[in-house]
Amino acid sequence: MIRKAPVNLVHEATSSRQVSIRRVVSGSLQTGADSVAVEEPLEICLAWPEAAVQGTASALERGECNIAVTMRTPGNDIELALGFLFTEGILHSFAQVAEVLVAEEFSNRVTVALHVKPELDALQLARNFYMTSSCGVCGKASIEAIRTHSQFPPGSKDFVVEADRLLQLPAALEARQAIFQGTGSIHAAALFDNEGLESSVYEDVGRHNAVDKLIGAALMNGRIPLANHGLLVSGRASFELLQKARMAGCPMLAAVGAPSSLAIDLAWDADITLIGFLRDGRFNIYAGPARIVS
Amino acid sequence: MIRKAPVNLVHEATSSRQVSIRRVVSGSLQTGADSVAVEEPLEICLAWPEAAVQGTASALERGECNIAVTMRTPGNDIELALGFLFTEGILHSFAQVAEVLVAEEFSNRVTVALHVKPELDALQLARNFYMTSSCGVCGKASIEAIRTHSQFPPGSKDFVVEADRLLQLPAALEARQAIFQGTGSIHAAALFDNEGLESSVYEDVGRHNAVDKLIGAALMNGRIPLANHGLLVSGRASFELLQKARMAGCPMLAAVGAPSSLAIDLAWDADITLIGFLRDGRFNIYAGPARIVS
Repeated sequence: MIRKAPVNLVHEATSSRQVSIRRVVSGSLQTGADSVAVEEPLEICLAWPEAAVQGTASALERGECNIAVTMRTPGNDIELALGFLFTEGILHSFAQVAEVLVAEEFSNRVTVALHVKPELDALQLARNFYMTSSCGVCGKASIEAIRTHSQFPPGSKDFVVEADRLLQLPAALEARQAIFQGTGSIHAAALFDNEGLESSVYEDVGRHNAVDKLIGAALMNGRIPLANHGLLVSGRASFELLQKARMAGCPMLAAVGAPSSLAIDLAWDADITLIGFLRDGRFNIYAGPARIVS
Repeated sequence: MIRKAPVNLVHEATSSRQVSIRRVVSGSLQTGADSVAVEEPLEICLAWPEAAVQGTASALERGECNIAVTMRTPGNDIELALGFLFTEGILHSFAQVAEVLVAEEFSNRVTVALHVKPELDALQLARNFYMTSSCGVCGKASIEAIRTHSQFPPGSKDFVVEADRLLQLPAALEARQAIFQGTGSIHAAALFDNEGLESSVYEDVGRHNAVDKLIGAALMNGRIPLANHGLLVSGRASFELLQKARMAGCPMLAAVGAPSSLAIDLAWDADITLIGFLRDGRFNIYAGPARIVS
């Protein structure tokens, strides 16, 4: 069976799992149960009409797929695939998507079928392989090779957030983290504006995946670029997360954890306001302080 | 200039960096400075004699490299490269290594030169690309494609640790995390035995890199397989970290954070004792409880 976008596959039941454990508390050993976050591979595949002509079966049956495998928590798989392809610069618009295919019998694969063959240059492909690769990265300046290039101008200068509003975000995020509350172990991402946090929270064992799910949902809902929104993440702010915010045209990223040096560099370069250590009634502004008002 | 192994390149000065920030504490905005963890790409390259014959310059100058680029915190780069190649199943022994090359003018690349060309089958290469890839993963059962296969039997049944010893490990790790104490933002990995934590702690913005640095150092020091040691990590226990422990022949992994479902599955399958939530005077045993005694 094939499902078409915008089917939203939220497998609540498979995002966490009960396991039997032994607990050691105050020196005593007890048997018990615990809820853990599910981690499974997801293959993200691309297909297009020319490819389908070459085979006899459907793109899905032939497994026309050549993009990525990521370890993720099941749920919002279609959003994850779309967000990944978009933030990698492979997909530029939801209008390019003919349908999104998920086979019930092989639910760890999402195939994004495009109306026409995408134009992918060598640098984009090289970038796409950077994590563990055998590719064209070598010999180029590494940083340049792993940079994605956004189709949007730097975020709006008019988007400003009051410091007090920012301080309220972590508690709002935690209250909405359904999987985290069960497992204590999962990353979350959500959008905010000057009124506060939006109700949709995206969770995953991988921090990048949580953000890709959020951006994929925004893409499906026609909300890209996110010019007047900030992106809140439950963990640290890495270079990758800043790149994803940049690709979505989002002018602010607020992290409960610390930023890396490269994240700060990219934030200044791309005119993104970067907030770190947003917790316990405080935060640090690492880049773009003009968008924060008191 | 070329450096040969076992030169230990610990760039303390470049593991963290001072940046100017604005702080919001108790509603008041202050300017100040903060220390952040450095994040930079590292290219991990392989070279062998046959390859060198084909070119006119040295392997390093030609940039003979085709394995991976990872975002890492500088320091222990040689260990990271060796540990990565070993836990990916590309390198099987330190005796295969002729030299390790680092160019001072391009310090974000480590080239591991082997005595003879390595035998890499298609599955290993597919596995190596799994993160973001255009490869042979598609059409195979995903889990099988991303599994590495260890050269060591399951860990020793004789390695047992007292619960009280385990409870002391997090404080010992925290006390030794040099970069974390400055930046509050970095993962750490260290070995322990029944006497307690070893003094060498490996840190990185990436959890996988911290473990690869540790395993690479063990490989250089002739300590693989780590049959009578446990591996302590500061964060969560993902499938990847269990695979790395398995590749190093390590029978126990203890995480300060939560495990994922797939990590638990692999721990049972590979007979590895998996400890989670090791903090605040307690822990959970998710697999292999027989190695924990009270």
